[in-house]
Amino acid sequence: MKDLAALQALFQKEIDALQLGLAPDKLYDPMHYIMNLGGKRLRPVLALMGAGLYGDPSKAMPQAMAIELFHNFSLIHDDIMDAAPLRRGQDTVHMKWDENIGILSGDGMLVKAYQYVAQCSQKLLPEVLATFSKTAMEVCEGQQMDMDFETMDQVPLDMYINMIQFKTSVLLGCAMKIGALVGGATEEDAEALYEFALLLGTSFQIKDDYLDVYGDPEKFGKQVGGDILSNKKTLLWIEAEKRAALQRIDFSEYAAMPPNEDKVESFQELYKILDVDAFAKSEIDRYYQLSLEALDKVSLDLQTLAPLKEFAQWLHGRES
Amino acid sequence: MKDLAALQALFQKEIDALQLGLAPDKLYDPMHYIMNLGGKRLRPVLALMGAGLYGDPSKAMPQAMAIELFHNFSLIHDDIMDAAPLRRGQDTVHMKWDENIGILSGDGMLVKAYQYVAQCSQKLLPEVLATFSKTAMEVCEGQQMDMDFETMDQVPLDMYINMIQFKTSVLLGCAMKIGALVGGATEEDAEALYEFALLLGTSFQIKDDYLDVYGDPEKFGKQVGGDILSNKKTLLWIEAEKRAALQRIDFSEYAAMPPNEDKVESFQELYKILDVDAFAKSEIDRYYQLSLEALDKVSLDLQTLAPLKEFAQWLHGRES
Repeated sequence: MKDLAALQALFQKEIDALQLGLAPDKLYDPMHYIMNLGGKRLRPVLALMGAGLYGDPSKAMPQAMAIELFHNFSLIHDDIMDAAPLRRGQDTVHMKWDENIGILSGDGMLVKAYQYVAQCSQKLLPEVLATFSKTAMEVCEGQQMDMDFETMDQVPLDMYINMIQFKTSVLLGCAMKIGALVGGATEEDAEALYEFALLLGTSFQIKDDYLDVYGDPEKFGKQVGGDILSNKKTLLWIEAEKRAALQRIDFSEYAAMPPNEDKVESFQELYKILDVDAFAKSEIDRYYQLSLEALDKVSLDLQTLAPLKEFAQWLHGRES
Repeated sequence: MKDLAALQALFQKEIDALQLGLAPDKLYDPMHYIMNLGGKRLRPVLALMGAGLYGDPSKAMPQAMAIELFHNFSLIHDDIMDAAPLRRGQDTVHMKWDENIGILSGDGMLVKAYQYVAQCSQKLLPEVLATFSKTAMEVCEGQQMDMDFETMDQVPLDMYINMIQFKTSVLLGCAMKIGALVGGATEEDAEALYEFALLLGTSFQIKDDYLDVYGDPEKFGKQVGGDILSNKKTLLWIEAEKRAALQRIDFSEYAAMPPNEDKVESFQELYKILDVDAFAKSEIDRYYQLSLEALDKVSLDLQTLAPLKEFAQWLHGRES
């Protein structure tokens, strides 16, 4: 997909030139470190795409950077909370430095994100800022819900969807909306584009759950079965637990298995017996279709919207 | 001081009615908990005073709340970094809940602070926001400098002053400036008022160092000698180390003493021998006088400025 690659390259140039501050180096080095760990840069690309629908994608470059800074701030703090040693195959910030430095450099990145997002016209600033802050609060709420789920016996599926939308999808929506606003979108268009990215992000996150179970280890990048080994309440887990009860299968016996290869295989089979793999796939497809439908409300011709649909299609088809 | 008490009461009413969010409760309860631990509310009062110079102090109520939210966010995270068990005689957030909750609720408070600070006219928003973000970055830098100092052999005095100004004083300056801007101050007035509060805050912080050594235990509230027991590089410590070398007194022997009452008394004496107590007092007075001089640049009559001077005098005379 040409547009995606071109926008990724455009954004990478900004990352290469990024200079957030020099001293104290223990505050700024971790920021540059994590911003340079790579990744697909989906969020900033969505912001640039949003602006690109109405003119020059670069108009939203500060907002794209703000979104990526915010995303990486949340990664640093989440990695501390999860005690995660690795991020994209490299040391996490708190492992490379320490937890205090992770907390503080994360805080600084959040402030930096606000400095970047505010680089728009005075006329747009209140709306851009309100959207960004609302999203940021939702991301915090989503992270807390995720932590709460760990100690809950059962999580209703709608709460789970609410959690992944807050923790992940709203930031995609926000990126798209802010990019569109800065590009010159009407409030109605910006809202429809927000819905598009929110729903696409929901499909994306459920796909993440699916790939964690059935992904190709060569392509997936993360350890397949990681969610199963840590008894993580994903969409598949939640639905399987519900269906197992109806079929008088003792789910708790599966959950209590020691975390090894055997457990992963048992769950892969159980999910198939319960048809939960097909359920996950249908939910992935449903949210994907809903996201495309949201585009119908955007007041732009099909040709202009084509790169967005292509992007959605690419994300939908991903295996990593 | 009537104005101070009246503004404290006005702000307390807002704290009493504060509702930042309901669920997830582990995200929002810690925010309300720390906001209700009390304190002198110096920062929000300065914001209200800033607006009060030009009209109704309440005009800056959202900004006063933003400043207090920011201050308390930084307290939660600093307490984690310092592994502090108590804050104002009560459990710190990470002790009452846990570190993860402290990190995340702190993050949420920073976002909330932005939501409050943005509640001003569109015309003022860019300037108010830029001032707030610049200050927030400086506070992060100040906190990192403070942590860096712990492992440095010697800290030059000017670096120390820079650190306390970033960690503490700039937020007082920011409160005053933003309050004044929202109240209707010119850019020049707002800048002069910023200087006033910055310099007053510097005097205030050095006084804190002084009271930690020579404060009346009945009035001070914190343990007298705490800085000495932890070998903290305060203004008195830094200056004493320098003067001891000139007088061939082995400062390292003092520093190596075990942390007990004896060490506190030895340092109290050493500081007197080296005249460092008088030096600290003169620095407290010098920054206080400089702060009053900054008021001369404000385009308001003496009567209007009287409450500010009274406030400065009260803060200068404090023993707790």
